[in-house]
Amino acid sequence: MSLDPTIASRLTRNSDGLVPAIAQEAGTGAVLMLAWMDDEALARTLATGRATYWSRSRREYWVKGETSGHTQHVRSVSLDCDGDTILLRVDQVGPACHTGTATCFDSGLVFEDLGVPAAGDAPAGSAGAPA
Amino acid sequence: MSLDPTIASRLTRNSDGLVPAIAQEAGTGAVLMLAWMDDEALARTLATGRATYWSRSRREYWVKGETSGHTQHVRSVSLDCDGDTILLRVDQVGPACHTGTATCFDSGLVFEDLGVPAAGDAPAGSAGAPA
Repeated sequence: MSLDPTIASRLTRNSDGLVPAIAQEAGTGAVLMLAWMDDEALARTLATGRATYWSRSRREYWVKGETSGHTQHVRSVSLDCDGDTILLRVDQVGPACHTGTATCFDSGLVFEDLGVPAAGDAPAGSAGAPA
Repeated sequence: MSLDPTIASRLTRNSDGLVPAIAQEAGTGAVLMLAWMDDEALARTLATGRATYWSRSRREYWVKGETSGHTQHVRSVSLDCDGDTILLRVDQVGPACHTGTATCFDSGLVFEDLGVPAAGDAPAGSAGAPA
């Protein structure tokens, strides 16, 4: 399967011929995972509407969910401004992560800034506003 | 600046010592851009709360918005399940893209599946609902 030349001409591939592809849940905006595509994987994705990646470890094309059933139905595909990243908005069936979590980032929090208290919140250490 | 060893031990870097970092707008969920971090860039990001990347083209650290003013205040940082992708949730000041668009994907749509109309939507070609 060959990729539309007008799309292929906009891609900036790494030295392995790959482009990172971010999968985002179309409904919620949750970032699900990042995987990799070459031209053929992108062509297959566009032709089938099923997210298809290149597995760097197995060195083969990989239709997401082909074995697990946790498929990604592609709603849109966008390239970034310099063509070196692909964003897929998908309807994810089941968990996106092979660990069983909804996204691949669910267990990986390493930093959280709880931010400035909203107006009306008591500042840390204060006695708080009258009830 | 050195990265917390417990975080460093969870990172899977590419052959250049880099990990892709996805920046997502905390408020809206919009995927803004993808850039790259090494351990030092991640350490600086965690220490300062300002997204700091490694510029592969300029070969230098790059505090997002340092020149443009379009900074990213980091609300959370998560690693994915195998430590080879970083997700930053940020408060983006101004447009994220150097082209002036809100995200780097705004001008890059190459595929869209408009899908099944939602319940109550008029089918294509219909006269539509009464005004």
